[in-house]
Amino acid sequence: MLTRTDRIQKDLETLATYTATPGHGVTRSSYSKEDTMAKEYLIHEMEKLHLNIYQDGVGTIFGRREGSQKDAPVVMFGSHYDSVVNGGAFDGAAGTVAALEVMRILTEENFQNDYPLELIVMNAEEGATFGPSTGVTNSRAMVGTLTMDELKTVKNRFGQTKLEAMVAYGLKPDLESCIRKPGSIKNFVELHVEQGPVLDQAQVEIGLIQYLAGIGRYTIRFHGQTADSTAPMSTRKDALVAAAAFVKEFDAQIKALGPDVTGMVGKLDITPNSNQFVPEYVEGKIEIRTFQKEITETTDFHQLIQNILDEVSYTYGIPCELEEIRRIRYPNPTGPSVMNAENVEKMKSICDHLGYSYLEINNGTGHDSMIMTDFCDTNMIYVPSRNHGVSHCPEEWTDYESIKKGADVLLCLIKDLAKKEK
Amino acid sequence: MLTRTDRIQKDLETLATYTATPGHGVTRSSYSKEDTMAKEYLIHEMEKLHLNIYQDGVGTIFGRREGSQKDAPVVMFGSHYDSVVNGGAFDGAAGTVAALEVMRILTEENFQNDYPLELIVMNAEEGATFGPSTGVTNSRAMVGTLTMDELKTVKNRFGQTKLEAMVAYGLKPDLESCIRKPGSIKNFVELHVEQGPVLDQAQVEIGLIQYLAGIGRYTIRFHGQTADSTAPMSTRKDALVAAAAFVKEFDAQIKALGPDVTGMVGKLDITPNSNQFVPEYVEGKIEIRTFQKEITETTDFHQLIQNILDEVSYTYGIPCELEEIRRIRYPNPTGPSVMNAENVEKMKSICDHLGYSYLEINNGTGHDSMIMTDFCDTNMIYVPSRNHGVSHCPEEWTDYESIKKGADVLLCLIKDLAKKEK
Repeated sequence: MLTRTDRIQKDLETLATYTATPGHGVTRSSYSKEDTMAKEYLIHEMEKLHLNIYQDGVGTIFGRREGSQKDAPVVMFGSHYDSVVNGGAFDGAAGTVAALEVMRILTEENFQNDYPLELIVMNAEEGATFGPSTGVTNSRAMVGTLTMDELKTVKNRFGQTKLEAMVAYGLKPDLESCIRKPGSIKNFVELHVEQGPVLDQAQVEIGLIQYLAGIGRYTIRFHGQTADSTAPMSTRKDALVAAAAFVKEFDAQIKALGPDVTGMVGKLDITPNSNQFVPEYVEGKIEIRTFQKEITETTDFHQLIQNILDEVSYTYGIPCELEEIRRIRYPNPTGPSVMNAENVEKMKSICDHLGYSYLEINNGTGHDSMIMTDFCDTNMIYVPSRNHGVSHCPEEWTDYESIKKGADVLLCLIKDLAKKEK
Repeated sequence: MLTRTDRIQKDLETLATYTATPGHGVTRSSYSKEDTMAKEYLIHEMEKLHLNIYQDGVGTIFGRREGSQKDAPVVMFGSHYDSVVNGGAFDGAAGTVAALEVMRILTEENFQNDYPLELIVMNAEEGATFGPSTGVTNSRAMVGTLTMDELKTVKNRFGQTKLEAMVAYGLKPDLESCIRKPGSIKNFVELHVEQGPVLDQAQVEIGLIQYLAGIGRYTIRFHGQTADSTAPMSTRKDALVAAAAFVKEFDAQIKALGPDVTGMVGKLDITPNSNQFVPEYVEGKIEIRTFQKEITETTDFHQLIQNILDEVSYTYGIPCELEEIRRIRYPNPTGPSVMNAENVEKMKSICDHLGYSYLEINNGTGHDSMIMTDFCDTNMIYVPSRNHGVSHCPEEWTDYESIKKGADVLLCLIKDLAKKEK
């Protein structure tokens, strides 16, 4: 038995009605009224499947199907259902609905799992809601890296802290209770729309993720002194010259590290940025992406940046500052999130069996799975995004039939992972 | 006999009433109704002095006092009376009124000049009225570098071309008739407010200009290609890295030229300027200032910039462009405007005689005198600006007594220059 497109479509169309901006895409912010409506719908659907439904201390919903092995580690699958402001109906929701549909099939088939299965339904994945590096909340709670300090400080567009929003939503936040014991999760599997054009352009049905690129983000600051354009060169403290020396050298050093890393200064803001005044202050943003764990083991990127800044500061007599932008992954924030390779091979066989075309792809988007790779064997299934791969906007679209095919792959993989190895 | 503060004050207070923005500073744009009112007042005052009053083909007013030498070159002195929008009552007007007062004294004293004297009253000095490099119109007309093409293309804030504004003002623009024969002007002398804090802070009464720094302005453009932050380094065309390499090398080459030149990239605009995307396009603004004529004779700055761009373009595979921003001085736009040194010495003696303190100062502001240095012996007298030297705003201020002292120096210098050398 395979998953049903009609039910997937109905679930997604229903979730899409829980929006704060009807007619202007899906706006389902975490802990909002629309979040509550969506959560109630999903719980109602889960109740029909006789799952053991429980909620953790940050509001993650789990629907547990016990297996023959009572205290065995769990096979977990699902995604998030929150959205950005004026977002689409598929980012997150597609994976949540696919997982729900998988659980329906297992129930209808009276599937006998050895390992316990948990459908996971998360509600605070989008970083935009509470600002940079504040997303993937529910998975961070499970792996123990979410802090009460964050909950008390980051704020949404209404000025509420995350903690205040959680309390208003009806939660009594409790981080301790969320933390999963090491080894207690056997697998984490998430289906997601690609949020890019690759699969659609290649007309491929299934994307099998090998890794999500690691991300390191830093702010660099150069404190010069302004002066008018007749000020003698020998007395100048030109912040842009120092920044330029940094940009050039950083580019050279990153290139020298080979193909497993990229890095750039993509943003540079200059004050006063006038042709008539010596630049007083320059602030830059660095983004580093890594594609192999080894590169982050052999290279300390923070130190690499600091060394260049020290050299520039000494050469130009300009104080420089380095600040790492808040991490959301520990202990190795810049490393890539590597998926379980054995399961990628299993999914290739599943695709072949089902007659679905597939592609191994990688990209740099962020997902709860990124957090889970540090904790347990994790895998992601991508389904094609239409409209040139746009997401986080009303034009975001994935065909329901495409999601059904991804859900089939998820179903078959979960069945495999749920059985005790012989 | 020396100049009179009361008459200077009355003239300046009267001119200040000819503003399009009463209560919000002086707005006396060239060729406006307020320009006409100011011009009529000044002509009326000049008529009392029995001068031979005439106007050239761009509306410059001259009040000529014949001397004993009939066809001798003229000693010319004056300034402009136009202002920026919401400007002050002193920039330009102070020099015009001081020159008028000098001519009054000469009349009252029945001064016997050998060389003809001309009071020059200009109305289109401010570049802001018609956009960058469109100011100092009247002096450019005299030296023959103003073009009909400029008059037909540059526009004021009302959408009028300079030609249309001139015609509406009552002129029949005729550039040929404005051009002065080489050697026909013996001296050009202008009094102006400092537009800076130096004299006021030093509590000095008179500033004697040695040179106004030369200006070279260029736009540089780097045409890269954007890509997301996971794009392999080997395939990138990062416009900011190329721009950074330029900024660093340009700074080094300018510094190597020694103290007679400054140069910088003060403005750099990056597209898209996001930490997540490789910079696609960077546009920079270069400003070069020169302080000795020799540096512009030994260094071709356009070529210096082009050579660095060529090197950067080759190294990074990024097309680069160089554009010189419209010149207003020919043939050597980047050279400094050097004042007549002998007359600076004469003015030192005059100051000593009058008991006025003085300072030799230089800066980078633009004046009609800057244009005249290419054509005849030119000198400038600065008087202190109050309020931290602000100008081009309602807070612009110079004490009337300060202008009177500057006018005294102007008077004594003109008397000296008007006499045939024995």
